[in-house]
Amino acid sequence: MKKETIERIRKFTIDRDWDQFHSPENLAKSIVIEAAELLECFQWDNEKYDVEHLKEELADVMVYCQNLLDKLGLDADEIVNAKMDQNEAKYPVEKAKGSAKKYDEL
Amino acid sequence: MKKETIERIRKFTIDRDWDQFHSPENLAKSIVIEAAELLECFQWDNEKYDVEHLKEELADVMVYCQNLLDKLGLDADEIVNAKMDQNEAKYPVEKAKGSAKKYDEL
Amino acid sequence: MKKETIERIRKFTIDRDWDQFHSPENLAKSIVIEAAELLECFQWDNEKYDVEHLKEELADVMVYCQNLLDKLGLDADEIVNAKMDQNEAKYPVEKAKGSAKKYDEL
Amino acid sequence: MKKETIERIRKFTIDRDWDQFHSPENLAKSIVIEAAELLECFQWDNEKYDVEHLKEELADVMVYCQNLLDKLGLDADEIVNAKMDQNEAKYPVEKAKGSAKKYDEL
Repeated sequence: MKKETIERIRKFTIDRDWDQFHSPENLAKSIVIEAAELLECFQWDNEKYDVEHLKEELADVMVYCQNLLDKLGLDADEIVNAKMDQNEAKYPVEKAKGSAKKYDEL
Repeated sequence: MKKETIERIRKFTIDRDWDQFHSPENLAKSIVIEAAELLECFQWDNEKYDVEHLKEELADVMVYCQNLLDKLGLDADEIVNAKMDQNEAKYPVEKAKGSAKKYDEL
Repeated sequence: MKKETIERIRKFTIDRDWDQFHSPENLAKSIVIEAAELLECFQWDNEKYDVEHLKEELADVMVYCQNLLDKLGLDADEIVNAKMDQNEAKYPVEKAKGSAKKYDEL
Repeated sequence: MKKETIERIRKFTIDRDWDQFHSPENLAKSIVIEAAELLECFQWDNEKYDVEHLKEELADVMVYCQNLLDKLGLDADEIVNAKMDQNEAKYPVEKAKGSAKKYDEL
């Protein structure tokens, strides 16, 4: 996300004095609650879905992720790159290519 | 996330030929599965948690969100700003300030 | 579940002095964490799954549901029948038959 | 649950011709979606919650669990007792008493 978008998310929280509700645990609950609403787009059909609804629910997940990053003073690029280091080590191309198996079954 | 980080996520998928597994529904399931692993950091304690573990699980959620954006050709800033428009309308500052109530109970 | 099975679940908690961790909120988190592990059986494939693993994860969900019933002194038949009353009213046979639509779209 | 309650759940599905939507995967998604609605009772407050709402959401989780048992021809007591065998072996009383640690950290 661009800096302006991130700033808009932060301002939204500050303006409403909602930081008091943003404990890391409450934000983790909120991420899973919104993720389940995203999944609900596919509850009875794997293929047809309402893309406008999906966009709203995915945005909700992403906003709460940003709230959690902010709450803990984390940098998105730093934590994602650290995890990608791990993923690349756990799933070497020559073993993982074309396979949906977990790393411990490769 | 920076363009390089996003490109790294994309290359990881392409190199492993994993786009075939990235149906929107599979990615929605993956987001909720990782969100629940993030929540597991707080399963029995609301306050103490392993921040290194939390960073990994939050990164997993964010990577799958990026995968879903990519799969559907969506732009993070666009969908988040559209949702923030809605949130700002549903939670006007004067009504929502300091309250954790849902918009339909304000 | 039979009375003996329910008693076994209760004894397991008592013997380990785990009631102290079973706040309603911790049990709600545990139910969603285990439900996501159940979903993981289908993460990359909608049709093939490991039935032995599925049985373990479904049992985990059911055990935590029983823990929550016990914590709050609720009766499974009572709450399920009350909800079925609602479901039957929201989804009348003549409208809902053969349709996966939500009640507010029927 | 009593036999009559289980029969009521089954009849509800049959009367609406909904078995066609009850693939194991769809039911697994439904369990996690309802579990997240249960968690929503505690989204911003760990201690205060609407018990009537909680009862409805817990009942929803339990109904979908029964649907999944039925779909796969599983017996609740059998799978729960098999899991309790595992739990008792993984969490021996003398090690686990009073501790919220995972079995691999005991």
